[in-house]
Amino acid sequence: MRTDERKSNQIRPVKLELNYTMHAEGSVLISMGQTKVICTASIEDRVPPFMRGQGKGWITAEYSMLPRATEQRNMRESTKGKVTGRTMEIQRLIGRALRSVIDLGKLGERTLWIDCDVIQADGGTRTASITGAFIALSLALHKLKEDGKLKAWPVKDFLAAVSVGVNSESEVLLDLCYEEDATAEVDMNVVMTGAHQFVEVQGTGEEATFSRQQFNQLLDYAEEGIEQLFLIQKEALGEEISKLILAAEKEGK
Amino acid sequence: MRTDERKSNQIRPVKLELNYTMHAEGSVLISMGQTKVICTASIEDRVPPFMRGQGKGWITAEYSMLPRATEQRNMRESTKGKVTGRTMEIQRLIGRALRSVIDLGKLGERTLWIDCDVIQADGGTRTASITGAFIALSLALHKLKEDGKLKAWPVKDFLAAVSVGVNSESEVLLDLCYEEDATAEVDMNVVMTGAHQFVEVQGTGEEATFSRQQFNQLLDYAEEGIEQLFLIQKEALGEEISKLILAAEKEGK
Amino acid sequence: MRTDERKSNQIRPVKLELNYTMHAEGSVLISMGQTKVICTASIEDRVPPFMRGQGKGWITAEYSMLPRATEQRNMRESTKGKVTGRTMEIQRLIGRALRSVIDLGKLGERTLWIDCDVIQADGGTRTASITGAFIALSLALHKLKEDGKLKAWPVKDFLAAVSVGVNSESEVLLDLCYEEDATAEVDMNVVMTGAHQFVEVQGTGEEATFSRQQFNQLLDYAEEGIEQLFLIQKEALGEEISKLILAAEKEGK
Amino acid sequence: MRTDERKSNQIRPVKLELNYTMHAEGSVLISMGQTKVICTASIEDRVPPFMRGQGKGWITAEYSMLPRATEQRNMRESTKGKVTGRTMEIQRLIGRALRSVIDLGKLGERTLWIDCDVIQADGGTRTASITGAFIALSLALHKLKEDGKLKAWPVKDFLAAVSVGVNSESEVLLDLCYEEDATAEVDMNVVMTGAHQFVEVQGTGEEATFSRQQFNQLLDYAEEGIEQLFLIQKEALGEEISKLILAAEKEGK
Amino acid sequence: MRTDERKSNQIRPVKLELNYTMHAEGSVLISMGQTKVICTASIEDRVPPFMRGQGKGWITAEYSMLPRATEQRNMRESTKGKVTGRTMEIQRLIGRALRSVIDLGKLGERTLWIDCDVIQADGGTRTASITGAFIALSLALHKLKEDGKLKAWPVKDFLAAVSVGVNSESEVLLDLCYEEDATAEVDMNVVMTGAHQFVEVQGTGEEATFSRQQFNQLLDYAEEGIEQLFLIQKEALGEEISKLILAAEKEGK
Amino acid sequence: MRTDERKSNQIRPVKLELNYTMHAEGSVLISMGQTKVICTASIEDRVPPFMRGQGKGWITAEYSMLPRATEQRNMRESTKGKVTGRTMEIQRLIGRALRSVIDLGKLGERTLWIDCDVIQADGGTRTASITGAFIALSLALHKLKEDGKLKAWPVKDFLAAVSVGVNSESEVLLDLCYEEDATAEVDMNVVMTGAHQFVEVQGTGEEATFSRQQFNQLLDYAEEGIEQLFLIQKEALGEEISKLILAAEKEGK
Repeated sequence: MRTDERKSNQIRPVKLELNYTMHAEGSVLISMGQTKVICTASIEDRVPPFMRGQGKGWITAEYSMLPRATEQRNMRESTKGKVTGRTMEIQRLIGRALRSVIDLGKLGERTLWIDCDVIQADGGTRTASITGAFIALSLALHKLKEDGKLKAWPVKDFLAAVSVGVNSESEVLLDLCYEEDATAEVDMNVVMTGAHQFVEVQGTGEEATFSRQQFNQLLDYAEEGIEQLFLIQKEALGEEISKLILAAEKEGK
Repeated sequence: MRTDERKSNQIRPVKLELNYTMHAEGSVLISMGQTKVICTASIEDRVPPFMRGQGKGWITAEYSMLPRATEQRNMRESTKGKVTGRTMEIQRLIGRALRSVIDLGKLGERTLWIDCDVIQADGGTRTASITGAFIALSLALHKLKEDGKLKAWPVKDFLAAVSVGVNSESEVLLDLCYEEDATAEVDMNVVMTGAHQFVEVQGTGEEATFSRQQFNQLLDYAEEGIEQLFLIQKEALGEEISKLILAAEKEGK
Repeated sequence: MRTDERKSNQIRPVKLELNYTMHAEGSVLISMGQTKVICTASIEDRVPPFMRGQGKGWITAEYSMLPRATEQRNMRESTKGKVTGRTMEIQRLIGRALRSVIDLGKLGERTLWIDCDVIQADGGTRTASITGAFIALSLALHKLKEDGKLKAWPVKDFLAAVSVGVNSESEVLLDLCYEEDATAEVDMNVVMTGAHQFVEVQGTGEEATFSRQQFNQLLDYAEEGIEQLFLIQKEALGEEISKLILAAEKEGK
Repeated sequence: MRTDERKSNQIRPVKLELNYTMHAEGSVLISMGQTKVICTASIEDRVPPFMRGQGKGWITAEYSMLPRATEQRNMRESTKGKVTGRTMEIQRLIGRALRSVIDLGKLGERTLWIDCDVIQADGGTRTASITGAFIALSLALHKLKEDGKLKAWPVKDFLAAVSVGVNSESEVLLDLCYEEDATAEVDMNVVMTGAHQFVEVQGTGEEATFSRQQFNQLLDYAEEGIEQLFLIQKEALGEEISKLILAAEKEGK
Repeated sequence: MRTDERKSNQIRPVKLELNYTMHAEGSVLISMGQTKVICTASIEDRVPPFMRGQGKGWITAEYSMLPRATEQRNMRESTKGKVTGRTMEIQRLIGRALRSVIDLGKLGERTLWIDCDVIQADGGTRTASITGAFIALSLALHKLKEDGKLKAWPVKDFLAAVSVGVNSESEVLLDLCYEEDATAEVDMNVVMTGAHQFVEVQGTGEEATFSRQQFNQLLDYAEEGIEQLFLIQKEALGEEISKLILAAEKEGK
Repeated sequence: MRTDERKSNQIRPVKLELNYTMHAEGSVLISMGQTKVICTASIEDRVPPFMRGQGKGWITAEYSMLPRATEQRNMRESTKGKVTGRTMEIQRLIGRALRSVIDLGKLGERTLWIDCDVIQADGGTRTASITGAFIALSLALHKLKEDGKLKAWPVKDFLAAVSVGVNSESEVLLDLCYEEDATAEVDMNVVMTGAHQFVEVQGTGEEATFSRQQFNQLLDYAEEGIEQLFLIQKEALGEEISKLILAAEKEGK
């Protein structure tokens, strides 16, 4: 039995507060258990230099934690004067994942800035960020569409992410909280699309290793969890946006 | 009449959500109109090198905005690799202000880290940060007291801050929202204690100047606004903490 | 009685060595007692990107201390790799103050770089910098005028600054030297124009507070001190430049 | 058929020049096709602060490319003043992978610094770095053992890594060269131990996605390639060191 | 007798592996005894901003050491976040020296990036870098010429460098290895052209001094050593390139 | 004839204002023609980590220019966030030169911080800095001696520096002003001791070269110039300090 009495293949309660902030074109406060992340999508009407003149858009993501989002206070990266390796890894992952379900050609020459700011951390902040960022991004693009600024709908499919792991008793667990994560032997983050395709799989033995059989079970659990997240995303985004995405997904096949 | 129909000497609605985050020893989400700031107080059981061995504590503050707290997205300071002059000014101000009502000798050799993170900005973020930080700090110190780790109560008095300004029609206004602030000719931030003493007055003609008479009216309005903030702080902190503070204030006279 | 036998409302001897350096368009070595600052004004024939195409000029200020300007040697900011918060606060203050008496539209698309380098520090370096920078700026603009490069005279009024404070015996003092400043309970910097308008008032209780009555006396002393600085500025700049400024001031009313 | 006429499940020719540099305790120049990396292992007789007093050792890795290791010259990270996100990701990966086969408790309070410097890049630099770093590390530890400074042999198993991918015709390929890598739809790096356990699996759809079936074939190919790398490592390290590792592996089971 | 049995005026064995890397337009691995440096020359078809529109080219050099090129591992400059003073001095020296024998007007608006990366250090890395960089540069320019992209041959003369020094017994030595260099009282680097002209002489008493007589002997030894380096350069570059350089040298007289 | 009518082997007028600043243990304002440098020596009662426990002292130098010391304003290095290569070269040179005439063992475990700040630049700032820094250092050490804190006098000999060069008409010139320096073909800085020994010789062909014969004449001129600087130093330091230095020099022979 897990500390919060969940089953091994059960995700934590998810809560999505859409349009959480007033200025961003799209925003959401996502809670996965005690992990809380503000995700915003901001639209800029130009692309970075390496993309100019191609008629395509770009998506870039940034990730940060408030200093006291964690049990121990962490020094701010602005005070350190540099972004840590962990942060860079995470924000590169978020951006890459989102770009896999967006048709950049249909964005026009625009940059979508995704900001994921962790307000409270209890494990799984990077996967919650991806799941939330997809919502913020869809809201921002829907706003663009409403304003008549998009020629075609660019979101090709749903996108969500979850963590899975192996604990010290060799049990596979879905959606680890911090306490479970800190003692896990294997830690894996999985990002998938609505069409059950993988976008990213990052599995790490934390000074340990794992067998091919465990690997398969980890993927099974991840698929189960992400399936539930898609249902929650659909309900939150509502029928209109969900239909746009599903139509694009069918068209893409 | 102001854009939001307030009177010139009226503050915006204030909301305080105490214990907003689970990890920090003290925390609050303060809203002043549309301005929202998460203030946390974290306790570390040692002091910076320049304070060691004096048997006294220290309070230090950091301030930041989420990139899309504002109308236009701002680049993160961690990405820039340095903290801007504006941020440094503000966090030095917050720290100084809080230290003026805390008896550092009664803290013991501890550092209190105050973090003010602006989630949404609509003018007056630095004054809201001070008013909120005082709450977070008081909650953290009360927790220390409850845990039997404080010999004496260190909060000597209430502390709150408000902005005042002069608009382009030479009217004095209390608690400016962003739209008013952006066009103001004079901008002043005032920090006061419960005993009606000034802690900090920073008045700036924004490529303009102001007379001594205007100065006096600005101070009158600030006093009025801060008086109301004290009532709200007292109610939020509750009777037990408020009594501790008032007792310390009387003792200090 | 003060350490140097001055009266509480008396400023230190002021000395201005105009055209102190050979390369700068305007320069002065200002001494206020033992505090010595080299102020230079440099003209660049373009403005920063955010100002381009507006037909207006810009003024920006930088402030620094030689490492051994102070009693203890300070590490250079270039060695630290960053400008401290204190320096940023001061250079932002100097720039803002100067811009309040200059008609940027009359500058043309030029940047005036003001450099204030403290050679020797004995309190009041930021106010001496402002008082001196006004001289350097006026000399540089007069040179531009002589060269026929200015259509209209841009200096709208005189500008000077002084520090005031409250010592541990609750006495108000004008123009504090370092020894007085280090032990002051309240420290205030006041910047005013020749027309007796305030440009900036920054009053800080140094882990202490101050009453409204003390505030008023601080302002009275500051006004007295600044009045004397205007006389010294006028004499140093000479009749021709002073008349240009006074004419502009009358016109502005 | 691939550009260099390899079969889809064939690795490139591997060459290992052991003891390539004179100063490092262990070193190798590894070539995988045209990709060439100098790997060195340096021993320092202390551990980082967070490890002190635990009687355990630490392994940390750094990775870099010469500016002209690539087709286009890249700016040095020292000139940029910071390490890029890509470099951080890679050096964190190398360090984590090596630590998974080393018993840190048997190292004593020592740090092993692993440096992987890419002299010439043609795809797969991070996996070649891991495969080579394992050699350099083993040589350095064997030297320590010869010098009587190790109580027990700390290398618990062999370790090697390879890249696999899916090209635009949906074919799975083993050990991609740069030309193949640049156009791949899926890119995966796999690190395994001699006991056929996974240490790290990082699979990324490059603005594309992949199915579970493709995932399985990618893992099959990776296992095949790594199996061959183990044979090459054993031959290069020689009988004595290989026996030490295999004995430790058996003991660990 | 020296540690490696050389005579006092004898240089170490020199080895040049031309075209050492596949991507660079020109490259060489130079060994001077145990000192090994990879020198590459990269061609970029534009010049830095301060050179634009002058119809001339530019040459810039960068120098670095692998962390374990030395007896003790050195922290990477990318990790430190800045280039050290020593590195800057050396790369400025290499760039200046190369520019003295190149007719920048004949390069066209191109930048030649010279990278000198020390693989193994045993004294004299900066002089080996210059001697090797001249080879890499000549090869790159010859390639440009072969491709019909150069109107005239820009290399005006040969260029080589060597170190000389005075040991603690006041003996003058040519081409010091690390052990000799570390204990030398005087250390001098000399750069000369094929026409026996000096380009750079940098002599330093290492907490010691030297007489004019010693100075003369140091220069005599340096000339001898450099004379031998020219023979090695000529043989390595081959008849065709050597003739181009010698013809340009005669023309220049 | 030179622009200021000097003879080719004549130095510019030298002026030394001793004890120029009130806080530093030793200080001087040195003028060489229009070049003006404030040199201060500060004493710290500890040494850097790499020197601890050896019973010896250390001398370190920093060099900077005010932004408008030059004809065109230069950006501050603190604003750039890093020290340039030129500055590093110069401050390393100053420190090395001073250490050659100081017996570090006689300093005790102290650091002498030398700061050379160029107030106005007209060529030869680094050599003026060395000549001035020697004065500031001697004054500071004499103060230490007067305070009874030195067991033995550590200054072993006089030290001065001068620049020499070759102009475009192949004439050798002593002590170049900026205009001469900017167009010189060869630029050489020479540092010597009172005993006519060389400490440092740095000769650079500025995209030009020089013959051995020219080299000899450059050294002759430098010796002449430095000889005059010694006379000026002796007179400025006065009989007591000069005797201490000369006695130490004789003892050292």
